[in-house]
Amino acid sequence: MQLGSSALLTDLYQLTMLQAYFDQGMEDTAVFELFIRSMPPHRGFLLAAGLEQALEYLEHLRFTPQELEWLAQSGRFSRDFVSYLERLRFSGDVHAMAEGTIFFPPEPVLRVTAPLPQAQLVETRLINLLNFQIMIASKAARAVLIAPGKGLIDFGLRRAHGAEAGLLAARAGYLAGLSGTATVLAGLRFGVPVYGTMAHSFIQAHADEGEAFEHFAHSQPQNVVFLLDTYDTEAAAEKVVGLAPRLQREGITIRGVRLDSGDLAEHARKVRRILDAGGLRSVRILASGNLDERAVQALISAGAPIDDFALGTRLDSCEDVPYLDSVYKLQEYAGRARRKRSEGKATWPGRKQVYRTQGANGCMDHDILTLEGDPQEGEALIQLCMHAGKRITPIPSLLEIRQRAAAELARLPAHLQRLKDAPPYPVTITLALHALATSVDQSTSEA
Amino acid sequence: MQLGSSALLTDLYQLTMLQAYFDQGMEDTAVFELFIRSMPPHRGFLLAAGLEQALEYLEHLRFTPQELEWLAQSGRFSRDFVSYLERLRFSGDVHAMAEGTIFFPPEPVLRVTAPLPQAQLVETRLINLLNFQIMIASKAARAVLIAPGKGLIDFGLRRAHGAEAGLLAARAGYLAGLSGTATVLAGLRFGVPVYGTMAHSFIQAHADEGEAFEHFAHSQPQNVVFLLDTYDTEAAAEKVVGLAPRLQREGITIRGVRLDSGDLAEHARKVRRILDAGGLRSVRILASGNLDERAVQALISAGAPIDDFALGTRLDSCEDVPYLDSVYKLQEYAGRARRKRSEGKATWPGRKQVYRTQGANGCMDHDILTLEGDPQEGEALIQLCMHAGKRITPIPSLLEIRQRAAAELARLPAHLQRLKDAPPYPVTITLALHALATSVDQSTSEA
Repeated sequence: MQLGSSALLTDLYQLTMLQAYFDQGMEDTAVFELFIRSMPPHRGFLLAAGLEQALEYLEHLRFTPQELEWLAQSGRFSRDFVSYLERLRFSGDVHAMAEGTIFFPPEPVLRVTAPLPQAQLVETRLINLLNFQIMIASKAARAVLIAPGKGLIDFGLRRAHGAEAGLLAARAGYLAGLSGTATVLAGLRFGVPVYGTMAHSFIQAHADEGEAFEHFAHSQPQNVVFLLDTYDTEAAAEKVVGLAPRLQREGITIRGVRLDSGDLAEHARKVRRILDAGGLRSVRILASGNLDERAVQALISAGAPIDDFALGTRLDSCEDVPYLDSVYKLQEYAGRARRKRSEGKATWPGRKQVYRTQGANGCMDHDILTLEGDPQEGEALIQLCMHAGKRITPIPSLLEIRQRAAAELARLPAHLQRLKDAPPYPVTITLALHALATSVDQSTSEA
Repeated sequence: MQLGSSALLTDLYQLTMLQAYFDQGMEDTAVFELFIRSMPPHRGFLLAAGLEQALEYLEHLRFTPQELEWLAQSGRFSRDFVSYLERLRFSGDVHAMAEGTIFFPPEPVLRVTAPLPQAQLVETRLINLLNFQIMIASKAARAVLIAPGKGLIDFGLRRAHGAEAGLLAARAGYLAGLSGTATVLAGLRFGVPVYGTMAHSFIQAHADEGEAFEHFAHSQPQNVVFLLDTYDTEAAAEKVVGLAPRLQREGITIRGVRLDSGDLAEHARKVRRILDAGGLRSVRILASGNLDERAVQALISAGAPIDDFALGTRLDSCEDVPYLDSVYKLQEYAGRARRKRSEGKATWPGRKQVYRTQGANGCMDHDILTLEGDPQEGEALIQLCMHAGKRITPIPSLLEIRQRAAAELARLPAHLQRLKDAPPYPVTITLALHALATSVDQSTSEA
């Protein structure tokens, strides 16, 4: 059983509701939309990500014999219903924003149109997949915007929330423009470029730091990056300078050094001077240690001579915004628009489309949120990507998605690129959508 | 390929270091310890969790043919080294604190004793597994402590960081004392009790709210919990009162109602009055909606008549503490103690043991952190759990772990149970450990 594809990766209430839908024969077409209710603090924009995994999940959705037996034995469900689950496949349509598209609450990023039980069952996992990758891609994009020309590498697997989070963070970060990741499996699975240096334990396992450097250089001649801060950062930099000519004679070039503790700007300046004085101007300095886009900005602003930044724990755990207010809401059932009116949580009904207009400077200007079939000026962002349970080809590659994200970030207005206090981007709700909401409210029976 | 067990769930630097260890024949015994460097904000204690998954990972560690081929083709590694990886298994020992044990920084929770390459390779995934479950178990335990007698259920899968996070959060939460989870797969995989109600979409898919209630009750007669806030919470409560006698005649008892928006304390009071006046005193009120232990405490303090709380997003994303400063550090190699001295990140060297003393009131009094083989008063917390790559039996069941956690929480001093401003718990470092650190510093070559 592949963990991420299990049909039981869902909340129990989806299954208890499905039993009731089954009993009542409620299998008409339902339309659900997935959106973020409001912009999280410290964010000026969001970046769509995770669609690939969402569509894979839908395409392969099925209950295994073991899962069906367990459900049957739970005593919660009828035999007929369990047989129905055995046959259940996702046969619906999905419309979505392409991965790498910038978007804003409350614009939908994904719409599912399917028989009600299918569309209901998949809610939990669709949110689970999209919420996380959107969160990571959006945070990584902030780092990309404030560090042009710098190398930015995801180092966060160890403190990501489990295996899938680490793996998908590597994907989402690369999609948003990071240079790569340290997570090896993301190289095999997604083709994300993989980077790595050495750990303190490598130095400590040797009796002598210089010997450790030399051993590493001989074993990884194409990838020589030395970690300097195990004992004394500047003393280690001097050792690197001493070692370089010897390695040079063997045809080995030192690529870089890594700083991982203390005042990184100050150490970088000292180390840069030592390296330069030793003729090692081309050796890059990589900084790591609980960095995120705010720390990177501070180091760049301080003029620290750092070439590459490792984004670790704070990226993969999305430390400042560890969740989004992401929801998946019924918009239409059996041909009738629906909406929820709970206090503070009311939603816009119907199948929606987002149009994006462009200003004279080539930047995005404002968005229009309206109903499908109500054309507006601008580019329509929501497109069909799965029909009758099959994905629409061609499927964009991760590189294509990354290029799209880069193009999107290039047309983001300067004030939305700020790390804080970005003004809200205008998303206009059309009269047609207002009118539908009013009409749904009037017709909803509460008798 | 099972995602969580891949040997490539590691940082590239582990593999580049392994190539160097291989080239140098550095296969002597290494000792690494995993610990949390410092107590995160707003926490008075931590709860050990995740050992089960860590040991499973070690027991099944191997590179698949596909992974080996990909590594060989990367051009980073020698053929001989890839052949060596093909044969690599974890053959070491693991000592650890039992899951469900309360602990404090910088006490080690896990120690790996194995040939250096094996012990090095597993760093990333061991931290990844333990960091997350410790974080969730510790947060869930706070809720358990402040809400005695209340039902507490994990509802957080959708906004957990991926599938594994959702699944392991359900396990860690249950271990810490939550009543159960909504995540169905956690029922199948771990035997965690599974709970569920209904979603707003269920109500909205029906033309009439009362009809929706009735359909649900007929399909799930053993599990009748109605969601009240889709349109108007108190009006919905009145409908429940109206429906109850009819259901009663059919032998169906209403278990509970759920509130998910607005002022939960105020709605709970109004709904309780309506239910009581309608003769439904035994119907429980469940509250949900971005709750964590602080919100639960506030609702209980406000005297809100809520019986059960759903802990969702803020628990599973560990919103206030989304990572721990968890590390895995080399303590000894080839019979010699080691330590890192990086600024602000120095570690205690050697193989360590933690002794816990008990006060007159039966509560834990203070801990003593010392070297293995330096017996102290109190209970030794670190025990052998894997020998030569095989787990020590009997392996504790999740229920036994949960009982251990309950016993541990019962002997936690009252001041450490506070949700904030808990004073630090005393962890004494012995003279023997101080002396070893000094001796390691003096002997470490920096020439």
